[in-house]
Amino acid sequence: MVSIVIIGSGNVAQHLITAFLQSDEIELIQVFSRQKESVSHLISSDKIVSDYVEIKQADLYLIAVSDNAIADVSAKLPFENRLVVHTSGSMPLEILDSKNRRGVFYPLQTFTKNKPVDFKEIPICLEAEKEKDFKIIETVATTISSVVQSISSEQRKALHVAAVFVCNFVNHLYSIGAEICEENKLPFSILQPLIQETANKIAIKSPDEAQTGPAKRGDTKTINTHLHFLSDENQIEIYKLITKSIIDHGKKL
Amino acid sequence: MVSIVIIGSGNVAQHLITAFLQSDEIELIQVFSRQKESVSHLISSDKIVSDYVEIKQADLYLIAVSDNAIADVSAKLPFENRLVVHTSGSMPLEILDSKNRRGVFYPLQTFTKNKPVDFKEIPICLEAEKEKDFKIIETVATTISSVVQSISSEQRKALHVAAVFVCNFVNHLYSIGAEICEENKLPFSILQPLIQETANKIAIKSPDEAQTGPAKRGDTKTINTHLHFLSDENQIEIYKLITKSIIDHGKKL
Repeated sequence: MVSIVIIGSGNVAQHLITAFLQSDEIELIQVFSRQKESVSHLISSDKIVSDYVEIKQADLYLIAVSDNAIADVSAKLPFENRLVVHTSGSMPLEILDSKNRRGVFYPLQTFTKNKPVDFKEIPICLEAEKEKDFKIIETVATTISSVVQSISSEQRKALHVAAVFVCNFVNHLYSIGAEICEENKLPFSILQPLIQETANKIAIKSPDEAQTGPAKRGDTKTINTHLHFLSDENQIEIYKLITKSIIDHGKKL
Repeated sequence: MVSIVIIGSGNVAQHLITAFLQSDEIELIQVFSRQKESVSHLISSDKIVSDYVEIKQADLYLIAVSDNAIADVSAKLPFENRLVVHTSGSMPLEILDSKNRRGVFYPLQTFTKNKPVDFKEIPICLEAEKEKDFKIIETVATTISSVVQSISSEQRKALHVAAVFVCNFVNHLYSIGAEICEENKLPFSILQPLIQETANKIAIKSPDEAQTGPAKRGDTKTINTHLHFLSDENQIEIYKLITKSIIDHGKKL
């Protein structure tokens, strides 16, 4: 059994609490949260603490707070030489206070409040300063996920940038699709099957193989029709730039 | 029973052949294809013709060829006053030769050769000059799909632009994600669950509600770290522009 204290009560913390409580090999002994009510629906209230001095001894302390609070929280922990990890994709291991043994436990997923996720399929990216500590977080990760990867801080930075492109930026393109639908009295739901299939496709084809559309075909006539149709300045610029990028990328293949 | 002749043998034609053959209410009487072998695995060879004069009488002629061939093919049909539709998202109804009764039968999906699709969930966007003809294509559409919409040529153009954003451009962002992974010795598959969840999310949340990430948070520090990390000129420009667009879009909400 690995004993764990989770520090934080946001989206990631909540999903981890749920996952850990379902595991027989993990003992979630405490959750540190300033707002007890944000996790009280998940764990019994005697296990929720809001004062650092109340935090018990554990094998692993998992900091799941916003990026800019990690350094501060890790410095405030009133103990030394214990294993403390953060869950951020964008922060280096070194952001954690060096008084404790440090590591990273980064679940690569976009979490939505109240939308359950299947942790088994979520890649968990691990990093630790000491081999012994890596083993501990690896044990924890493999009990909740089947995709566990050792990732350096530099690789994690790359992964986080990639994640911004395939998640945050993709979602913004969905927003633009929704806006165009709305302006033309079309339900956005009509695009849903296309969005799903576009995501499904790359499970069996590489994105390069899966690329279709006017830019890929070099169909300047359709491209110009589309540019003529658009009126929003950002939409026009995005259309032009991604079209150019698809064409340039095609030349490299 | 509605009798149909399909003209074309590409991706869309093949998926339509498969769907029509599964329907009890449709009689697929012929497929017109210059390359008989491209559809001979789907339909018996006596039903495949490659000479316009061999085309039989039918209730509906469905032209599923590339956009720039539609006008030519429709002009070559050796008959008049029959119902002829095309399947293109980007072409107006008027591209069809006016000697026949015209319409559009546009399945809004990205089709992949040899990857079966569930037609039931694919929105089919319909347009016809005459009410009577609309009923015919509506009957055909509802036998293969549960999402059938009457869409004007102008709306269809909007939908096609939106589809380019949420499908073709999204796929290019997947390409960029794959490139960043490759350069950093990471398997692209590690991004797959995130890509899936990003698509799944907007089935329950609007894209505006689902938006997360540094641009949405106004997290300039992370944005600058990411821009510093990137080296490809197109990737940098796309990162900057979509970040700007997310911020501008947030101000409008």
